[in-house]
Amino acid sequence: MRNQLSYPAGEQNKVHRLADKRAAYDLETVHSIMNQSLVFHVSFQPDAQDAFPSTIPMLGALGNFDYPSAGLNEPQDAYIHGYISARMTNLARKAMDDGLPGLPVCLSVAKVDGLVLSLSAFTHSCNYRSAVLFGHASLVTDESEKLWALEMLTNKIIPGRWDQVRQPPNKTELVQTQVLRVRVTSGSAKVRAGPPADDKEDVQNAEVMAKVWSGYIPLVERMGEPIPSAYNKLVEVPENVRDLQEEFNKEADAYNEKLVKQVEEDVISWGTI
Amino acid sequence: MRNQLSYPAGEQNKVHRLADKRAAYDLETVHSIMNQSLVFHVSFQPDAQDAFPSTIPMLGALGNFDYPSAGLNEPQDAYIHGYISARMTNLARKAMDDGLPGLPVCLSVAKVDGLVLSLSAFTHSCNYRSAVLFGHASLVTDESEKLWALEMLTNKIIPGRWDQVRQPPNKTELVQTQVLRVRVTSGSAKVRAGPPADDKEDVQNAEVMAKVWSGYIPLVERMGEPIPSAYNKLVEVPENVRDLQEEFNKEADAYNEKLVKQVEEDVISWGTI
Repeated sequence: MRNQLSYPAGEQNKVHRLADKRAAYDLETVHSIMNQSLVFHVSFQPDAQDAFPSTIPMLGALGNFDYPSAGLNEPQDAYIHGYISARMTNLARKAMDDGLPGLPVCLSVAKVDGLVLSLSAFTHSCNYRSAVLFGHASLVTDESEKLWALEMLTNKIIPGRWDQVRQPPNKTELVQTQVLRVRVTSGSAKVRAGPPADDKEDVQNAEVMAKVWSGYIPLVERMGEPIPSAYNKLVEVPENVRDLQEEFNKEADAYNEKLVKQVEEDVISWGTI
Repeated sequence: MRNQLSYPAGEQNKVHRLADKRAAYDLETVHSIMNQSLVFHVSFQPDAQDAFPSTIPMLGALGNFDYPSAGLNEPQDAYIHGYISARMTNLARKAMDDGLPGLPVCLSVAKVDGLVLSLSAFTHSCNYRSAVLFGHASLVTDESEKLWALEMLTNKIIPGRWDQVRQPPNKTELVQTQVLRVRVTSGSAKVRAGPPADDKEDVQNAEVMAKVWSGYIPLVERMGEPIPSAYNKLVEVPENVRDLQEEFNKEADAYNEKLVKQVEEDVISWGTI
């Protein structure tokens, strides 16, 4: 039952264009795309008067402190790490003084998976996976939640890393490091995953077909060989770092192979125009 | 002289944390980082009342219609392509009715270049290149500017592509396709490019050094072999597509090699903590 949970499509999160083919609102899809990205583009409104939003890319991960074993198909908060400016802290505090649960933010991620080259410039496209979440951001003040969030963020990026590094954190580290928690209220995803899709008239036009190459150029991000620092003393790269590299590349290659196969076979599937 | 142009650092675009090491305001750096990204995260404020910004990832490129040969070290507008919703169109029109030069937007891009693993969880970091631009967005209504922008956007993604595809565009294509121009008013960039940077106490702690692997994991995005569509009739992949793949990968590899070399040699350079 739980894997059916979806964000209701409303004015804020609704995908308008090609929604039937590319939009997704189920928590599993939206949360998975968010969590595949190391960085969330965090947008907020610094000043209601001047109307310019401000965007800061920050490290982020989804988590549920009250129910840490919750899956990505279940409700999640977004935890954001990085330098939390005095401006953001003050805005979050002000929002809470105004009776809101925090500073209203929009979190956005996008991965371009490849370039789609078709017969007309106007049908060119990209394969991509993108998602947004909306919610209220506030500073995590509870010490146990903060430590839990830092461990969760560290291990999201490098599984098992928290237990490998120097422990415990020192006082300066804990005081200087802040974490934002975003109580998520809505979200959506948009995905394109398919071959070029040309107009019939172009495909049936022998002159155009004889002149224009159509196809796909994959854009794949892979992890390179781990490089020891100049002062590193350990001879072996830890197994979890090796595993991370292997898993990351296996997933990236598998997703790309699926896309390439669709291009070669021209299978028009979900997500494709 | 022109390569000295910079965006003045103000409240809106100022980089606060580690600004001396990571911030850049010169047009060349900011514009180059923006233009390396296919997708801009476009944020705007849909409703002054509810305070939630909205972010949409859209294809973007910098250009200067009045002075098309302007370099990236010179003033540039941002052109954004994709589905321009009725909401955005109406907001831009409303902003102009209110006497603004368009809808206030923030454009954000970020590329994570690798994971920086150090001795303490709190000194872990990423190498990255990020940039933001602020400006006023409005629909391009002049037909010649619109065609110019579509050609420029197409050729930014695949150099030389515009002249290869079916020409001319048909009426439906031109009517259905809209382009946003953002008159840029400010911007900044933030870059980290360096090895792990640990606290002296940790590096001098033999127990920590014997236990913790420190180093760097590169994250490199490369273009794969171009895949012909199932209906493509051209035997050869066009030379410009081959060149694009080669150039893209050469640049990605060269940038990564520079970072890896810094890790191996522990050269603490600009941009590094």
